[in-house]
Amino acid sequence: MIEHNEHARPGEGLPWADVIEQLPWNQDGLLPAIAQQHDTREVLMLAWMNREALEESLRAGRVCFYSRSRGKLWRKGESSGQTQQLRELRLDCDGDTLLLLVDQQGPACHTGRRSCFYNALRGAEVVVLEAPQVDPKTLYRNG
Amino acid sequence: MIEHNEHARPGEGLPWADVIEQLPWNQDGLLPAIAQQHDTREVLMLAWMNREALEESLRAGRVCFYSRSRGKLWRKGESSGQTQQLRELRLDCDGDTLLLLVDQQGPACHTGRRSCFYNALRGAEVVVLEAPQVDPKTLYRNG
Repeated sequence: MIEHNEHARPGEGLPWADVIEQLPWNQDGLLPAIAQQHDTREVLMLAWMNREALEESLRAGRVCFYSRSRGKLWRKGESSGQTQQLRELRLDCDGDTLLLLVDQQGPACHTGRRSCFYNALRGAEVVVLEAPQVDPKTLYRNG
Repeated sequence: MIEHNEHARPGEGLPWADVIEQLPWNQDGLLPAIAQQHDTREVLMLAWMNREALEESLRAGRVCFYSRSRGKLWRKGESSGQTQQLRELRLDCDGDTLLLLVDQQGPACHTGRRSCFYNALRGAEVVVLEAPQVDPKTLYRNG
């Protein structure tokens, strides 16, 4: 469905009501969702959404994922306060990945770091790039 | 394994040889890999890597994915010329997503657009944000 946009011009589009009906959810009913800070463009994390999580995120304007480990909706920041306001939803060319432009309150990572991608391969070592902004003990895990 | 970095200080780290042995590949032996333009921070695409693709990317300095649809290694740009030089590999807090900081030559998307994330939800429509930079007929699909 979304592939029809391949030949559309900038500003043209498709009805969301039709697109969401035909998103290529994986065998578990999920799509990967990248959260990117809307202004700095920092990639904060990747998590997963089912249809219910996606619809709730759009309705609430606050990001809700689906936790694969807990098997239920994961309202980002519900327990930690580190919410993600959803600024814009983007979809890739074949609709199997979501890009969330967000405004992250505080750290995105359960370790207290701004981004989950704080490990970098440098030479033969995977080094830590940043220190926690807040003590992770004050955050609930996966909050 | 990579979780041990949670309590490390900036600049401290773990041997890559140990980390790669314990990456949490999914049931298909794959991890999602986000490609981000290293300087503009634009998110270009998401694809998948198996261990072989990851090791080849690091060895060659050029990104190689694993194509799930074709069931084999996908040397990005091999047929289209739109290669991705790998500037840095990053891993998230639990090591189940890769972030590739790349230098993308030309468009990343098989449609000829710079980024695969050219669809944005605006109101009730999914609109196209950008036109192709090159005629996609001159690119091989998934090149």
